[in-house]
Amino acid sequence: MIGYNPKDWWKLIFAFHRSDTFRFLLPGIAGVAAYTGVVAYVENDVFHASFKNTTVVHSLVGFVLSMLLVFRTNTAYERWWEGRKLWGSFVNNSRNLALKLHAILPKDSAERETFRVLIINYIFAAKEHLRTGVHVKKLAQTGPYDTDFYKQKKHVPNQIMGAIYQEINNLYHNQNITGDQLIVLNSELQSFTDNLGGCERIKRTPIPYAYSLFLKKVIFLYVFTMPIGFVIEFKYWAIPIVAIIFYVFASIEVIAEEIEDPFGTDANDLPTDIIYETIKDNLEEIL
Amino acid sequence: MIGYNPKDWWKLIFAFHRSDTFRFLLPGIAGVAAYTGVVAYVENDVFHASFKNTTVVHSLVGFVLSMLLVFRTNTAYERWWEGRKLWGSFVNNSRNLALKLHAILPKDSAERETFRVLIINYIFAAKEHLRTGVHVKKLAQTGPYDTDFYKQKKHVPNQIMGAIYQEINNLYHNQNITGDQLIVLNSELQSFTDNLGGCERIKRTPIPYAYSLFLKKVIFLYVFTMPIGFVIEFKYWAIPIVAIIFYVFASIEVIAEEIEDPFGTDANDLPTDIIYETIKDNLEEIL
Amino acid sequence: MIGYNPKDWWKLIFAFHRSDTFRFLLPGIAGVAAYTGVVAYVENDVFHASFKNTTVVHSLVGFVLSMLLVFRTNTAYERWWEGRKLWGSFVNNSRNLALKLHAILPKDSAERETFRVLIINYIFAAKEHLRTGVHVKKLAQTGPYDTDFYKQKKHVPNQIMGAIYQEINNLYHNQNITGDQLIVLNSELQSFTDNLGGCERIKRTPIPYAYSLFLKKVIFLYVFTMPIGFVIEFKYWAIPIVAIIFYVFASIEVIAEEIEDPFGTDANDLPTDIIYETIKDNLEEIL
Amino acid sequence: MIGYNPKDWWKLIFAFHRSDTFRFLLPGIAGVAAYTGVVAYVENDVFHASFKNTTVVHSLVGFVLSMLLVFRTNTAYERWWEGRKLWGSFVNNSRNLALKLHAILPKDSAERETFRVLIINYIFAAKEHLRTGVHVKKLAQTGPYDTDFYKQKKHVPNQIMGAIYQEINNLYHNQNITGDQLIVLNSELQSFTDNLGGCERIKRTPIPYAYSLFLKKVIFLYVFTMPIGFVIEFKYWAIPIVAIIFYVFASIEVIAEEIEDPFGTDANDLPTDIIYETIKDNLEEIL
Amino acid sequence: MIGYNPKDWWKLIFAFHRSDTFRFLLPGIAGVAAYTGVVAYVENDVFHASFKNTTVVHSLVGFVLSMLLVFRTNTAYERWWEGRKLWGSFVNNSRNLALKLHAILPKDSAERETFRVLIINYIFAAKEHLRTGVHVKKLAQTGPYDTDFYKQKKHVPNQIMGAIYQEINNLYHNQNITGDQLIVLNSELQSFTDNLGGCERIKRTPIPYAYSLFLKKVIFLYVFTMPIGFVIEFKYWAIPIVAIIFYVFASIEVIAEEIEDPFGTDANDLPTDIIYETIKDNLEEIL
Repeated sequence: MIGYNPKDWWKLIFAFHRSDTFRFLLPGIAGVAAYTGVVAYVENDVFHASFKNTTVVHSLVGFVLSMLLVFRTNTAYERWWEGRKLWGSFVNNSRNLALKLHAILPKDSAERETFRVLIINYIFAAKEHLRTGVHVKKLAQTGPYDTDFYKQKKHVPNQIMGAIYQEINNLYHNQNITGDQLIVLNSELQSFTDNLGGCERIKRTPIPYAYSLFLKKVIFLYVFTMPIGFVIEFKYWAIPIVAIIFYVFASIEVIAEEIEDPFGTDANDLPTDIIYETIKDNLEEIL
Repeated sequence: MIGYNPKDWWKLIFAFHRSDTFRFLLPGIAGVAAYTGVVAYVENDVFHASFKNTTVVHSLVGFVLSMLLVFRTNTAYERWWEGRKLWGSFVNNSRNLALKLHAILPKDSAERETFRVLIINYIFAAKEHLRTGVHVKKLAQTGPYDTDFYKQKKHVPNQIMGAIYQEINNLYHNQNITGDQLIVLNSELQSFTDNLGGCERIKRTPIPYAYSLFLKKVIFLYVFTMPIGFVIEFKYWAIPIVAIIFYVFASIEVIAEEIEDPFGTDANDLPTDIIYETIKDNLEEIL
Repeated sequence: MIGYNPKDWWKLIFAFHRSDTFRFLLPGIAGVAAYTGVVAYVENDVFHASFKNTTVVHSLVGFVLSMLLVFRTNTAYERWWEGRKLWGSFVNNSRNLALKLHAILPKDSAERETFRVLIINYIFAAKEHLRTGVHVKKLAQTGPYDTDFYKQKKHVPNQIMGAIYQEINNLYHNQNITGDQLIVLNSELQSFTDNLGGCERIKRTPIPYAYSLFLKKVIFLYVFTMPIGFVIEFKYWAIPIVAIIFYVFASIEVIAEEIEDPFGTDANDLPTDIIYETIKDNLEEIL
Repeated sequence: MIGYNPKDWWKLIFAFHRSDTFRFLLPGIAGVAAYTGVVAYVENDVFHASFKNTTVVHSLVGFVLSMLLVFRTNTAYERWWEGRKLWGSFVNNSRNLALKLHAILPKDSAERETFRVLIINYIFAAKEHLRTGVHVKKLAQTGPYDTDFYKQKKHVPNQIMGAIYQEINNLYHNQNITGDQLIVLNSELQSFTDNLGGCERIKRTPIPYAYSLFLKKVIFLYVFTMPIGFVIEFKYWAIPIVAIIFYVFASIEVIAEEIEDPFGTDANDLPTDIIYETIKDNLEEIL
Repeated sequence: MIGYNPKDWWKLIFAFHRSDTFRFLLPGIAGVAAYTGVVAYVENDVFHASFKNTTVVHSLVGFVLSMLLVFRTNTAYERWWEGRKLWGSFVNNSRNLALKLHAILPKDSAERETFRVLIINYIFAAKEHLRTGVHVKKLAQTGPYDTDFYKQKKHVPNQIMGAIYQEINNLYHNQNITGDQLIVLNSELQSFTDNLGGCERIKRTPIPYAYSLFLKKVIFLYVFTMPIGFVIEFKYWAIPIVAIIFYVFASIEVIAEEIEDPFGTDANDLPTDIIYETIKDNLEEIL
């Protein structure tokens, strides 16, 4: 994620950022402009066509297309925001779990260290798991939980969570925590797995194939039939006009595609690295 | 579900996939084109009609129709996404339940195997139950839970869940788990039935009959009255124009119909087979 | 609710079903057509009026009206779908409660029968309570729970739920279930009353009076001022045009009214009878 | 709230109800009509102005304005409906709490009366608290809970809830209820305060000041610049046209303002008096 | 937050409030007006340009832009309202926690004072933490909880919540509260941290950078190409027209930016100071 000041209009308007759709779409915009120029030349200067402009058709279809693009934007944003909520829930759960353990476990007991390391490792593994996979060597080690332990299973976060559950269960068996405290700790514990499962769901399920296919076909149809009528009315002025319309419509689809899977390291992705650091700092303060 | 790269524009635009609405609607599009051609011939070449074009009416109605189609798209997508969430919840619950049982049950105890098989069977049965029904012979067997057992009731997932509850209750009666652990295990247990019930609800309740009826009538009215005015203004060019508008409007309804019931094996359905494999792999790693 | 195949376009387009808004609105459509004919005759043939067409005003207002009708559709559908979710929750709760009791209670104990009958009665009473009231004679009887018992209170479902709570409490007092099991059973028990309360809320609270009043006034204003301008441009062709626009706009309001209160026996109401049968079958299989 | 039959079209169209926005806005509509008449006279008969009509500008702005008004309508309705849900939750909670206490407390014990009176008082106090404040003399008295008791604190519902918690705690201390039953009763108890807090939130937080300001400014700008162009095209016919458009747009804002704070005694407010009576009847039947 | 009467139309229309977007945008509006004047002079009086007006393009793009602005408004408002809900939840939780502690702790016990001070401090620290940071000297002191204690950690609310958990745990260890009461108190305790985490999430995650960038670019493109066509049709009248359109579109973006981060002290921010006072008054009455 990029930090930015949303109130700095001039800077944003003239920004030409790496993640700007204008930059990304530049080849497409140039292609559409060239195509429109060719159509304008052929229709006006070769055939001297004079049929009537069909803006009414582009109005009708443009309306449906706009609404579909807003539907697309809404669903992509909702996925992005749900991903953010799930990572916010990681923050809340690890804080609450740490605060509860802090109250329950005696100061400087070995278990404090174990839980602190395991929870921080879980968040780190979750972050990497949602990208390209976990390098178990990057995980902090404590007691029996070394690289060999983390390697045992393919799903590293599950392996760590299994260790956390095991440690809690040991406390219970050794009567370091009571049954009531076990119940009190339970809601945070199961929430970690729920959150990670939610992120996997967002990552693995893009918008239905039929919508992705259909939206791109309609944008294509819309933009490539547009010059046919426009060049007669606007002559070569149709070139910037069609290029701008292509820029606006295609950008909405492109941004939606980018934020739909928000756990990577792109400019618009969620700041999971920073959230991980926050959790790490918090836990090291508390436990 | 089809795996695809949402960023590969050209491939998607020119795709002619089995699930593409363009392919599905081709006969309809051809019919609309032929009908428009006939209307154009009759009005322009037979009657030489010259009344004024009624695009204003199609604008007014087109606006309402577009908004209704977006309403349709939203509700269909929400059902699809809710279905995905319910299956994501199956993943989370089986992981959490397995992690908890892994911490509670001694290594290599017989109960580990029983629970692993029963939970995997439950998910398999849920998947098949939402399609054409469960073939009990395909379910894994363990201890007393054989084909005869699964056959006893018509609602196979309920039968398996009954066995899981019974096994948990036996653990409790034999004091292998305490009352506090029973409470801790409860939330995952009841969530399985809630999820399956949610899927059955989506499957059995399409959008109200009145909307389905009304939307199809309005699309029909809209497309079949369109050539009357258009052929006078656009002559034979009305043929591709009306065909495109039919393609766009009918596609939205067709996609909505397809994703509304997302538990089958169509191209846009949810990947319940893959999710089942994920759960199976996870459980075999944990328990 | 009507069972139907949403993919059977031709059948739906030419259906003239009892619940079809076209049938319901036929007198209104005829009236609007006649009124438009009279306006056309008076303006064109009597006064030979020639002022300019006001379609711009109908475009402006038509836009707001369309969006309000979509708002109306959304709220009505959400109420319908929330009603469906509440009934889905009845299914899930009764299954979960039955599965839990099946695991706890010994085979063939008298309590199994009591709970099965009381839960099925509760669902039946809830269904009837949301229609015209409960005929206590139709409720199954078991042990002390006979017609006289059900009659004691005006709110029959509350009376039955009181009995279920009492029975659970007796099990607890007689130490047939432990305190931990009491806690585990609690969430399903309180959910029944929550669901029924949710249904009563939907039934008793239509959309605010001001919206219902306002929407009907605007549709009326819109349709009855439309011919004034249209008959000059379209002559007698205005008759089908205005009639179609009236059909489309009024239908949306009429369907919204119908699905807003979804617990009756109308064509678009929820299939509460079928859901009741499902619950009954499930419980008879489990308990 | 007004009881009404949403299907009675004629009655609603010609209703001239006290709460009708048409009645409320009549002075405004008359003012707009007079202003348009003056503009028509000045432009057409004094200056004989002939510049071109600016309907394109009003189309552009009208579109944004319509969408903002629908946004306004949606948020106002959501608040109204959330208020209704919170009061529905009061119904559900008091029923569930009463049913649980009915099962736990022996018949005709003094505590039954105490709880019944306190819960009914709580709902009554909540209702009045959301209006102009609680008259403690109107609260029913029982045992130590007399007018002097209720007067002790400014926030009367909190005072009553404190008493309910105290009574439950006494039952627990005197071992009339077990710890498991305490846990089972807890969810209803804390829900009362959550619901009341939710209602206070809706009551005290109108839509952000900036939107309220902005929407009124845009409606004003829109309606008062409209005659400038319209009177040239429509002459004195502009008077009813502008008046109707003002009526439609201003009504949406006026209704949103009215339902935004739904706990009063206006025609469109929630029926909290009736809900209170329902709860009272239910509790007197159960406890 | 500003208190205001939403029904006072005249006052709001002519208000020129510090937070009014009209005031904020005045320099921009003046700039746009001057730019339009220059374009009008150059095109009409210098070049005597006569190409056709391109309002159709601005209609097409204006439509998409409007819908994106409404999407922007919706998301900003949802964040603002979610923030309000989280602070409402602070009110509910502190009331419920205080009511429960009031019932459990003996009158005038030292713990009452400790909890009252700590909870009030937590809310105060949360409020300041969401602004510029907590001045620990402003926190009330009680027993061992003095300035030095609060200073120990950078995240002051976590430090206070740690103390609250510790105090509850002490009560449990000293058997002043039972395990059942510990479970009953748990839900309020963990909710404080969840609420604060939710607020931090809203504060730290503005809408994706790509949308902020894109929306500002499209508004800029839209407004600065508008005069090119408009000045030919409307001459110098284009100056107020373009200025008004800029005012309307830019205002929506400006208001969304302002309410998106609602925890500051701006005019449209949430009244967290007042909510803090409410909680303080409530707790001092109850505990």
